[in-house]
Amino acid sequence: MATINDNYLKLKAGYLFPEIARRVNAFAEANPKAPIIKLGIGDVTEPLPEACRSAMIQAVEDMGDRNSFKGYGPEQGYAWLREKIAAHDFQARGCEIDSGEIFISDGSKCDCGNILDIFGDDNTIAVTDPVYPVYVDTNVMAGHTGSCGENGEYAGLTYLPINASNDFTAQIPSQKVDLIYLCFPNNPTGAVASKRHLQDWVSYAKAHGSIILFDAAYEAFITDPAIPHSIYEIGGARDCAIEFRSFRKCGVYGHPLRLHGGSQNLDGQGQGWFTGRTLETLESAAIY
Amino acid sequence: MATINDNYLKLKAGYLFPEIARRVNAFAEANPKAPIIKLGIGDVTEPLPEACRSAMIQAVEDMGDRNSFKGYGPEQGYAWLREKIAAHDFQARGCEIDSGEIFISDGSKCDCGNILDIFGDDNTIAVTDPVYPVYVDTNVMAGHTGSCGENGEYAGLTYLPINASNDFTAQIPSQKVDLIYLCFPNNPTGAVASKRHLQDWVSYAKAHGSIILFDAAYEAFITDPAIPHSIYEIGGARDCAIEFRSFRKCGVYGHPLRLHGGSQNLDGQGQGWFTGRTLETLESAAIY
Repeated sequence: MATINDNYLKLKAGYLFPEIARRVNAFAEANPKAPIIKLGIGDVTEPLPEACRSAMIQAVEDMGDRNSFKGYGPEQGYAWLREKIAAHDFQARGCEIDSGEIFISDGSKCDCGNILDIFGDDNTIAVTDPVYPVYVDTNVMAGHTGSCGENGEYAGLTYLPINASNDFTAQIPSQKVDLIYLCFPNNPTGAVASKRHLQDWVSYAKAHGSIILFDAAYEAFITDPAIPHSIYEIGGARDCAIEFRSFRKCGVYGHPLRLHGGSQNLDGQGQGWFTGRTLETLESAAIY
Repeated sequence: MATINDNYLKLKAGYLFPEIARRVNAFAEANPKAPIIKLGIGDVTEPLPEACRSAMIQAVEDMGDRNSFKGYGPEQGYAWLREKIAAHDFQARGCEIDSGEIFISDGSKCDCGNILDIFGDDNTIAVTDPVYPVYVDTNVMAGHTGSCGENGEYAGLTYLPINASNDFTAQIPSQKVDLIYLCFPNNPTGAVASKRHLQDWVSYAKAHGSIILFDAAYEAFITDPAIPHSIYEIGGARDCAIEFRSFRKCGVYGHPLRLHGGSQNLDGQGQGWFTGRTLETLESAAIY
């Protein structure tokens, strides 16, 4: 008889956002006239700008002509898009990132989970506390943790507190961990990481052979020029970090376009570490 | 030190289609004037019809107005789309499938791999021979097989020959297998499965507590009214089958819209088995 992945049974009270949605829906049904301000998933608030719509409409029209329609794209994403991203988002900030190191995916949230496929099941894992639930739950589902304790923490994970007592920075652990999830600007606290702080993390990772999974989904909100937008602004990060980015948060409101980048140094063979699937023509056309 | 998933090392000569692409590119570079007919991935050959383009353009325009733009959709897909699919693709053919049993995903290929997340690692697995490589390679990557032998077969998998000697039907195995991948109309042979043949599979699955992962991506090519388009046309399939569908193959040329459906009976609790992510507004808007 087919068996199920019983790691799912360890998940505590379901995934946070569906649980919030369930409660909101129940409340709304019971109180149909109550105005509700939703503080769950940070949904988009503004329509798509004209430049994006025009590019997307042009891309649709291109799909209607035998001379311009596109079928399957390259599985890493279109070269022209990867080149623009490498130039504008990384090289322009002094990061040594080549277009061949950019992978266009269908979403940074999916990637935060899917990236685990390429790692061994024996890695020790660190997350911040509080943390974006996707990092934790995908590891639970993949069987990388024990059960959830009374305090809401899963056995086997290393939790790094970020709160007022440490100025909302993720404290470098004293023990060795193999995979470290860092998200700056942070979801949910909003705190940013200084160059010095990220440099400490890169030094730690290089010393221990660890990999930093760096979620930069909110980099577009950084206004202080001293704060790095990418972990690749830190020397040595090429050797120990995979960065995830999202275009949903940075002006292309209402439509997802995400990617993850990473360094070809990571596997020492210039192959990169990436898995995933192609971004669709329409989505890519909307950005540049 | 972080470790990698060394199951990837079992993969034989890379994934088939990238390998074909590498060889085609090398040949094309060496022979720049040679006309090449590509027989690898079955890419689209025709542009998008006008009805699809109009719907997609209307959807883009809706995204430009505060009163009509959409943010995150429901994670199972928009209700209106799931209702249309349940009515047109299943109920119209006599299948007892409710819209709540339809899950809109980003692609049936991804789903063929991702669906493994919800199953235990101890299931025995059957594939046809020849077979769409995705079914095999995703199981290899997930550690469900041993090494690849000289004959190209992975230890631990049950191979079900489909060839002229058995009229291109997948022979029911004598031993018990827990997960069975069936694809009809078949990729790559093009053979179809009769109701009787699928009924035999459903009977086998119910007798052994097995799950059939039924890939119906090519159902739109069926012209014989006696051939089922969905495994849910077979009595009892609700209890033992998950069906994957694709809209890329059926008239919406050049743009992917895929889904998988399944029966709420499968887990006995009316919850369904589904994982995945939402289809984007534009894609869903293009169909109905």
